[in-house]
Amino acid sequence: MQYPEPIARLISSYMRLPGIGRKTAIRLAYFTVNMNKDDVKNFAQALIDVKDKLTYCSICGNLTETDPCEICKDPRRDRSKILVVEHPKDVMVMEKMKDYHGLYHVLHGVLSPMEGRGPQDLNIKSLLKRLQKNSKVNEVIIATNATPEGEATAMYLSKLIKPAGIKVTRLAHGLSAGSDIEYADEMTLYRAMKDRTQM
Amino acid sequence: MQYPEPIARLISSYMRLPGIGRKTAIRLAYFTVNMNKDDVKNFAQALIDVKDKLTYCSICGNLTETDPCEICKDPRRDRSKILVVEHPKDVMVMEKMKDYHGLYHVLHGVLSPMEGRGPQDLNIKSLLKRLQKNSKVNEVIIATNATPEGEATAMYLSKLIKPAGIKVTRLAHGLSAGSDIEYADEMTLYRAMKDRTQM
Repeated sequence: MQYPEPIARLISSYMRLPGIGRKTAIRLAYFTVNMNKDDVKNFAQALIDVKDKLTYCSICGNLTETDPCEICKDPRRDRSKILVVEHPKDVMVMEKMKDYHGLYHVLHGVLSPMEGRGPQDLNIKSLLKRLQKNSKVNEVIIATNATPEGEATAMYLSKLIKPAGIKVTRLAHGLSAGSDIEYADEMTLYRAMKDRTQM
Repeated sequence: MQYPEPIARLISSYMRLPGIGRKTAIRLAYFTVNMNKDDVKNFAQALIDVKDKLTYCSICGNLTETDPCEICKDPRRDRSKILVVEHPKDVMVMEKMKDYHGLYHVLHGVLSPMEGRGPQDLNIKSLLKRLQKNSKVNEVIIATNATPEGEATAMYLSKLIKPAGIKVTRLAHGLSAGSDIEYADEMTLYRAMKDRTQM
């Protein structure tokens, strides 16, 4: 006895998602059977729509329904700053902080010799073009992750951009808000110490 | 800045699934954007199909594409035994063991006074009808979960069925295969001791 064919197909679809193994996929598939029919229809439509209705902004590389994206065409944004992130979802993370009002640039990855990803595989060329064209930009803030690859990418970009006379900054490293020194790792403590600020 | 509308909809759809919170839903939604378009289409179609193409078997209550289900209409199955489970997915779990060749009956839940679920809310009436109609059945194996509700449901069914002169059995309780006595809980040890078998 096999799973009924529609269930088997749904199980294998769920298994394509990251972090979802066979047992979880089975649980989700049977859960779906008991879901409200409209909810399932909306779910299916939402899946189709993220593939059909979204595109990447031709200016900054962010995910968007319109090209250019809402941020790039918003006249209220500060056009003197570009914040560089690895992925489109990082843009939303920065926006939630509600304190940054400049523009963005999405790299779509980081340099990773291990995985064979070089500068030509990232959205770097268009960043340089933006900086050449747009003389208003006076600061590029690099917000790649605090991983070895993120750091290497930040270094690489800084070396490319600085010669053009543009200020390049990097997000501060140190203790997380609410964290306990006892549990901080050595690298975090080292950087918190090195970049200590005057009170 | 809000999430692009199609992403926002997909995030809220993912959040309807059990065990998936907001952060995971966001990760899955952005992952979906980068998935192969055909995979996403197949996923959407599989969601629609589990709602449209599946029904419950009018005999045993299992999920099926055809009514009666594959098991109920299979002439090779042993019609003298009915194994009673809580959910359709439990049928597949038993089938994977490949040692049971009888029929099934799916209750679609267990008795739970706390959640206001009584006998009339379960697929019990049709089980009694099957036992009345089909004089071939000589054993009902109750395979509800080893939870308080599962045990109570097993007791309730046993009291209903036994007077008809049909043997009622329950899956054995004891140590899991490969488990360590040191980590077994008291109730498991108690039942393993009580139901010990002669070597």
